[in-house]
Amino acid sequence: MSEVRVGLIGLGTIGTGVARILLEQTELMARRLGKRVRLTAVCDRDLSHDITHHRGLDLSGVRLVHDAAKMLAADDIDIIVELIGGYEPARSLVVEAIGHGKHIVTANKALIAKHGEELFTLAAQHGTAIGFEAAIGGGIPCLKALREGLAANAITSVHGILNGTCNYILTRMEDEGADYHDVLRDAQTLGYAEADPTFDVEGVDTAHKLAILGAMAFGSTIDFASVHTEGIAAITPDDIASASELGFRIKLLGIAKPHGDGVEMRVHPTLVPIESQIAQVSDSYNAVLISGDFVENTMYYGRGAGERPTASAVVADILDIARALPDGIAHLAPPMGFPAAHRLNLATTPIAEVECEYFLRLMVQDEPGSIAAITQILADHRISLEAVIQKARHQTQAVPIVLLTHQTREGNLNTAISRIAALESVQGEAMILRIERFGA
Amino acid sequence: MSEVRVGLIGLGTIGTGVARILLEQTELMARRLGKRVRLTAVCDRDLSHDITHHRGLDLSGVRLVHDAAKMLAADDIDIIVELIGGYEPARSLVVEAIGHGKHIVTANKALIAKHGEELFTLAAQHGTAIGFEAAIGGGIPCLKALREGLAANAITSVHGILNGTCNYILTRMEDEGADYHDVLRDAQTLGYAEADPTFDVEGVDTAHKLAILGAMAFGSTIDFASVHTEGIAAITPDDIASASELGFRIKLLGIAKPHGDGVEMRVHPTLVPIESQIAQVSDSYNAVLISGDFVENTMYYGRGAGERPTASAVVADILDIARALPDGIAHLAPPMGFPAAHRLNLATTPIAEVECEYFLRLMVQDEPGSIAAITQILADHRISLEAVIQKARHQTQAVPIVLLTHQTREGNLNTAISRIAALESVQGEAMILRIERFGA
Repeated sequence: MSEVRVGLIGLGTIGTGVARILLEQTELMARRLGKRVRLTAVCDRDLSHDITHHRGLDLSGVRLVHDAAKMLAADDIDIIVELIGGYEPARSLVVEAIGHGKHIVTANKALIAKHGEELFTLAAQHGTAIGFEAAIGGGIPCLKALREGLAANAITSVHGILNGTCNYILTRMEDEGADYHDVLRDAQTLGYAEADPTFDVEGVDTAHKLAILGAMAFGSTIDFASVHTEGIAAITPDDIASASELGFRIKLLGIAKPHGDGVEMRVHPTLVPIESQIAQVSDSYNAVLISGDFVENTMYYGRGAGERPTASAVVADILDIARALPDGIAHLAPPMGFPAAHRLNLATTPIAEVECEYFLRLMVQDEPGSIAAITQILADHRISLEAVIQKARHQTQAVPIVLLTHQTREGNLNTAISRIAALESVQGEAMILRIERFGA
Repeated sequence: MSEVRVGLIGLGTIGTGVARILLEQTELMARRLGKRVRLTAVCDRDLSHDITHHRGLDLSGVRLVHDAAKMLAADDIDIIVELIGGYEPARSLVVEAIGHGKHIVTANKALIAKHGEELFTLAAQHGTAIGFEAAIGGGIPCLKALREGLAANAITSVHGILNGTCNYILTRMEDEGADYHDVLRDAQTLGYAEADPTFDVEGVDTAHKLAILGAMAFGSTIDFASVHTEGIAAITPDDIASASELGFRIKLLGIAKPHGDGVEMRVHPTLVPIESQIAQVSDSYNAVLISGDFVENTMYYGRGAGERPTASAVVADILDIARALPDGIAHLAPPMGFPAAHRLNLATTPIAEVECEYFLRLMVQDEPGSIAAITQILADHRISLEAVIQKARHQTQAVPIVLLTHQTREGNLNTAISRIAALESVQGEAMILRIERFGA
C-alpha cells in the first residue's frame, strides 16, 4: 500500500487533534483511500518539555523538530500542515514549503484572508495543492459544498454564523436576559472566549472567514480589508428583548451578496426571523446558509471550533490531496473554486449603498409630539415603517422607542438618523441593526 | 477551451431542470471548470409533440432522440445522465452505457439502492465514474460531505429527514392538529404528494435513500431489503399532541448506526427533542444529520426535491466528472467512499435487538388498578418509565395513556406489550414510537 507523508507544524489545540486522527484513525483512513497516511514529523517550538506523550498522544514513532524551517524541504514529507495561526511566521513557512513542492493544509483564516492570493498563485506555479476547509466553520465541510457541491449555481447569497464565541454570548444573553459584559466574563472563565476576545467580539474573525467565503462564492479575489465589520459589544438585553417581541433573534452574521456589478461583504449583528433555520443555531455552533439560483436555500451546521471537529476538517483536506497523489493534483478543484484566470476583482459595495430593513432603537423624552417628529423625518426621507414599539412611560426620564423600517438605502437612513439625533427630545446614540430574511 | 459532452435520458421534472442548467448556465460552468459542458443529446420517449421548446427550454441546438439505446454508444457523448427513474429500463440502459465507456450521473435512488453494487462493479471494470448525489436529499450535497468532507471520521450515526412529502404532512398535522388523511388529500391536490403516495408515506423512498447513505457511512455494501421500514399513516393528531407535551416532535427518520459488528438500518416515525436542530426542519425540506467520532454533530439542510434543486445536484456530479476528464477519473473518490476491495458486508441488526427509548400510547378503560397493572408488567420486564400521562377521565369510554420508557431492547418491550395487550382493561393496538436524541 502506498504512503502519503505528513509534516505537522504547531501542536496547539487543532494540531493535537490532527495528530490524534493521523495516529488513531490509520486503519480507517487506509480503508477509505487504499493508501496509508503517515505522520512523519511534528514541529513544536516549545523545547521545555518532552512532547512525545503530549496530551495523551503517542508520538514515539514521529520525528520531533523544534525549528519548522527544517521540515519544509524534508524528502519524507508530501504535505505540510500549518497550524500555528496568525500572519507570520505562518506565511513565510508556507511560502517556503510551496517552494519545495509541498502541498499545504491549513486552518489559518487570517493567513488565507490576508495572504491567500499570494499563496494560491505560488501554489499554482509549483503545481501544489492548498487546502483550508478548517479555516471556516470548524468541522463543517462548507467550503467543499460551496466549491463543488453547489457548482451548478450562481450563488445568490451567503449568510454565516462563523464565530462560536459571539454566538455563545448572544445565546446566553437571550436565554438569561443577561448583560454582554457579564456573559463575556463568564465565557472567558469557561474557556469559550479568549482572555483577549477582541478578534472574536469585534467581528474580525468573522470578517476573515467571510472574506474567503464571499470570494469563493462569487469567483472574486479575496479583499479582507473592504469587509464592513461591526461586533456585538453594543448589543443590550433590551435590544434582544425588543427584537424577540418583533419576531427576531440577533445573530452576528457574515453576509455576502451580489450587488450590481459588485458584492456586499459585511459582518454585523443582524435580526433574523425567529422561525428561520439560522435563528435556531445556538450556543457555540456555527452554520453557513448558502443560496443558489437553482438549489435555493441550503444550510451547513456543526461545531465551529474545538480540537476534534476542526481536526476533522484539516484531515479531510489531507485525504483529498492524498487521494490525488502522486499525479492527480491538477484534477482537484482549484482552491477558490475557479481557475485563477477566471477569477474577477469584484468591488465591495460601500455600506452606505446597501439596502436593508432596519431595527432602530432611540432614547426619547416622552413628551407630546416627539414620536411625530421622528416619524416625520423618516417620512421626509421616504422611509416607511413596519412597526413602532413604545412601552414604558416616564414623565422625566427618556424611554426607548423601537422602529422597524421597510427596505431603504443605508446612506438615506443615516441622513435621516442624523436629523433625528439633532432633535431635542432624542438622547444619546441611536442603535441601528440590519435585518435579513431568507425567502421560503 | 475543451469540451465535455452530456447525453440526457428523461425529460421529466428533474431532466428539465438539468437541461435548463446546462443550457442557461454555460458561461458560469465554463468559468468554474475552464472547460465547456455541452448538452449534446436529449432522449424523451414522448413522440407526440415537438419538445424543442419543452417548458421554456431552447433545445434547438440539441439532438433529440426517442430511443435511448441510440444514445448509449454515441461518439459525441462522454456522460450519460439517467433521469427516467425506477428499476427498468434504467438499469439496462446504465449497464449498456457503462459498457460503452460512458460516465453515469443519475438521481435514481431506487436504481442505486437495488442495483448499485452491480453498477459500481461494472463501472470500476470500465474505468468510468458514477455519480448519484441527487438521489438523496435533492439539492443538498450530503453525499459529498459524507464521502469526502467527513472522511477523517468513523461515522457514529446518520439521521435523515429524506422524504419531503412525509415531512410536509407531519408539519401540517402538527401545525393544524389535522388528520393524516385530510392533509394527504390536500397535499395531493397541491402537488406535494403523488396520486399514488405509497412509496413516500410507507417509508420505501426513505428506505432506498437510507440504504445508500448507511452503506456509504460505514463502508458496507448496500442492502436495501434488510432496512426495517415503517411509514407515517398510523400517526394521529393525538400522538403528535402527546409528543409535543413531552417535548418532542414526530419526524419520519432514516437512521443508520453501528451496532456490535453490524449496523442498524431503520426507517420509522421518530420522536425527536423539540429543541434539536433536526426538529426545526419543517414543510418539504430535507436534512441529514451526520455524526462522527471527531466532528461530532453536523447537519445538511435544503430542498429535497423539485426541478431546480435536484438538477443542481445532478449537475454538480457532471462538473466533478468533467473536471476529472480526460485522464483523472481514477482520482475521484470512489462512488461509495471506499474502494470496492475495502467494503464490508455488515449485517443489519434485527429490529428486535435495537435498543431505544419508547413512546407508548394505549387505550385503557379507566378503572381502579388499570395503570398499576400496566406498569407492573413493564417493571416485570425491567422497563423503567420516564413519564406517564393520563388526562381525560371517562367512566365508560377508554382513555389514552401515554408512557415514555427509558432505554430498553425492542424484543423485550414487545414481549411486555403483548402481555399488556392481553389485559382486559386495554383496548385496541398499542401505538409504539421510537425516540432518538442527539447529544450536545
